[in-house]
Amino acid sequence: MQAIRGRVASRALVAGDRLPSIRALAAETGVSPSTVVEAYDRLVADGVIRARRGAGFFVCATALPPLALAQEIAPQERDIDPFWVSRQSLDGDAEALKPGCGWLPADWMPVEAIRKGMRALARGGDGALVDYGSTRGSATLRRIIRGRLAADGVETSPDQLMLTASGTSAIDLVCRLVLRPGDTVVVDDPCYFNFRALLRAHQVKIVGVPYTPSGPDIERFEAVLAAERPKLYVTNSGLHNPTGAMVTAQTAHRVLSAAAHDVTIVEDDIFTDFAPEPLPHLAGLDGLDRVVRIGSFSKTVSASLRCGYIAARPDWIEGLIDLQIAAGFGGPSPVAAEIVAGVLAGGGYRRHIEEVRRRLARLQGDTAAALQRIGIKPWIVPRGGFNLWGQLPEGVDSARVARTALADAIVLAPGNVYSASRTAGRFMRFNVAQCKDPTIFTVLERAIKDQPG
Amino acid sequence: MQAIRGRVASRALVAGDRLPSIRALAAETGVSPSTVVEAYDRLVADGVIRARRGAGFFVCATALPPLALAQEIAPQERDIDPFWVSRQSLDGDAEALKPGCGWLPADWMPVEAIRKGMRALARGGDGALVDYGSTRGSATLRRIIRGRLAADGVETSPDQLMLTASGTSAIDLVCRLVLRPGDTVVVDDPCYFNFRALLRAHQVKIVGVPYTPSGPDIERFEAVLAAERPKLYVTNSGLHNPTGAMVTAQTAHRVLSAAAHDVTIVEDDIFTDFAPEPLPHLAGLDGLDRVVRIGSFSKTVSASLRCGYIAARPDWIEGLIDLQIAAGFGGPSPVAAEIVAGVLAGGGYRRHIEEVRRRLARLQGDTAAALQRIGIKPWIVPRGGFNLWGQLPEGVDSARVARTALADAIVLAPGNVYSASRTAGRFMRFNVAQCKDPTIFTVLERAIKDQPG
Repeated sequence: MQAIRGRVASRALVAGDRLPSIRALAAETGVSPSTVVEAYDRLVADGVIRARRGAGFFVCATALPPLALAQEIAPQERDIDPFWVSRQSLDGDAEALKPGCGWLPADWMPVEAIRKGMRALARGGDGALVDYGSTRGSATLRRIIRGRLAADGVETSPDQLMLTASGTSAIDLVCRLVLRPGDTVVVDDPCYFNFRALLRAHQVKIVGVPYTPSGPDIERFEAVLAAERPKLYVTNSGLHNPTGAMVTAQTAHRVLSAAAHDVTIVEDDIFTDFAPEPLPHLAGLDGLDRVVRIGSFSKTVSASLRCGYIAARPDWIEGLIDLQIAAGFGGPSPVAAEIVAGVLAGGGYRRHIEEVRRRLARLQGDTAAALQRIGIKPWIVPRGGFNLWGQLPEGVDSARVARTALADAIVLAPGNVYSASRTAGRFMRFNVAQCKDPTIFTVLERAIKDQPG
Repeated sequence: MQAIRGRVASRALVAGDRLPSIRALAAETGVSPSTVVEAYDRLVADGVIRARRGAGFFVCATALPPLALAQEIAPQERDIDPFWVSRQSLDGDAEALKPGCGWLPADWMPVEAIRKGMRALARGGDGALVDYGSTRGSATLRRIIRGRLAADGVETSPDQLMLTASGTSAIDLVCRLVLRPGDTVVVDDPCYFNFRALLRAHQVKIVGVPYTPSGPDIERFEAVLAAERPKLYVTNSGLHNPTGAMVTAQTAHRVLSAAAHDVTIVEDDIFTDFAPEPLPHLAGLDGLDRVVRIGSFSKTVSASLRCGYIAARPDWIEGLIDLQIAAGFGGPSPVAAEIVAGVLAGGGYRRHIEEVRRRLARLQGDTAAALQRIGIKPWIVPRGGFNLWGQLPEGVDSARVARTALADAIVLAPGNVYSASRTAGRFMRFNVAQCKDPTIFTVLERAIKDQPG
């Protein structure tokens, strides 16, 4: 392979040239014909050569040098918008420290259970490996999710659940069903930055309601509903992103009472498994009438298996299935969904998640203390999860701190990407599971001090 | 597990009851404590019981009987609309014959290469199994796709390619970037039914241009472009769906000349690998200026791995990446993408696809002959692929034939689901790889004869 590539790169072989026959090259180089076939096939796969039936192998007109093929693209310089944290976290320097990213380090995840699940699936029937699967997604995983929802106080019938390609695409599908450009949507302020990115893509008016340690500010929520007649309210139940706060049962009840029957509520419970005990949520009170419950396994099982779900009224699920066929011809990879199901059904998952909770509880305390030592004050100490919402000293702009820290290969999550009203400039979200390296606090402290106060 | 389930089902254990301690149950039943832990953990995963830290295991308030959990949902009776074939093909009776479905039987697919790829990935590093991966998707797979595009005459730079969750979601993303409700989009008539479903979801005006054996009717195409000022033209290059026809180089050139600089063309080359030789296409002539080339591996590698791609101008790709983050926080499962990459890079893929081509060529002939014997006339005999577009005898309505055949557990694809003008009522798409059972032709013949002519 290297020899042929070299001849193409040096122009000893040019476009349209016929390669030596398999037999001739095998004889010439002293390797077996099957080795030559293998090498030629890989060069075909790489687009360097092409097979013509009965005529042999030829150099492609557009054979690309392998170096250009391997070239990668660094994230662009861009404004600190709701995409900034995602792009830096996903595409940035692999060696960077990422206290601003929204997931656990790889070695916290149940990798051995995933490996086991993959091997089991590889031993199974053909269909699971190559067929589209049903429109609702893996029956095994749906059965498990319904069991988990039931344990969390949300009973569903089989026609109330479907799988999606991710938690985000679950929300996106609901938006496509419910929203039209120009509609108004209520979010928490602050809220998960990608809710804002998603809603912008839907060209709707976004109105934020201040989030308090016990849930949305209920007077403001009621006022916004009366004044703006929103179609949708998108929120995190359980552990709120970015603050780690949680809605109280009383606030949840008032939110549901305030939301007139024409407001749909999307409740994203992605962090529920990180909570130390069952938490109040809207779906449990509402019983999936106006509430659409969505979730995903990206934070607790694997972000690489990409699988989310929607639990909602049966008529909405019917419409959402059509939409998911139209827009993607299906939801998650059935292969991925079966692997997730294997991990969740395995006996080890509960012990795994309990260990994660214990570690997070310890790190919440450690990180809060470390931040306070450099003048960053936790808004609250969350009862679980990995998010910690920290307030910087007065006069310090978190976006500027984030830019400074990026030069030191540290990806931070400045507050205003979470804020529809852009009033969180002094805040920053920290992922306590990604804060173990003390360099983070040294760089943060310097970046804060360097700011003209 | 069965014992506990039985006690819950028979109400011997009810909501809130504490289960025996692990040690007590182990002693009572004579199994090891670790077996009891495993059983309890599985019951937790199923939502039957719940662990309370330090207090033991309790029956859930909403423990569902396992039977209800396993219940499945049959596809509804519905109009024969663009979703009809998808829903029947995906959710219908597993034992049904499906000459109307749009994919190869599972045993035609490269399942051994997929198994091998899964085992290799399961042996690899943690990151690939649990991390989100980069916003453009697997670098390995993108390198391979760029090589394949180059071999097909479409040169790309690394910033011109991104992976998506499927071929359909690739088109959907482009639609989201380019279209606004009320815009006009041109499709072929007939065209792949899901193009129509997708465009309806975007609330645009769909205008069909008759498809001829050499591509779109170019006079009509030019007239529609002048009269309707469309924003987008969505088409299949290579082997057209449903007809199996292919655009000639001359027609491709005229399409590009006619399309003013404000018309974006989406070219879906999903069937390219089934073509016996390189076919003319729009991206090759245009060089990805106005043409967006999309593709997927659902037909040739696995529909269960769900992975598509977009090749387009770098500035469009940047916008599409933001959109894909907003709407899904990523594209395909990175695990799935690496498995696809492994199959394509392996030396066996070329031989696999050549064998598939040979089998399809033979079946095209066999199926055309069998259809002709019962009065169904192939519109053309395609040069490759699995689609065959057949014309029923005069006065016979393919939708009625499809409904009749469904009662005999045969899923057909009636012509009007492909036709924006609904002028293909006498046509039907046949998948020659799914037509091997002679029952299909017996049932078809009877359904045709039973119609009042």
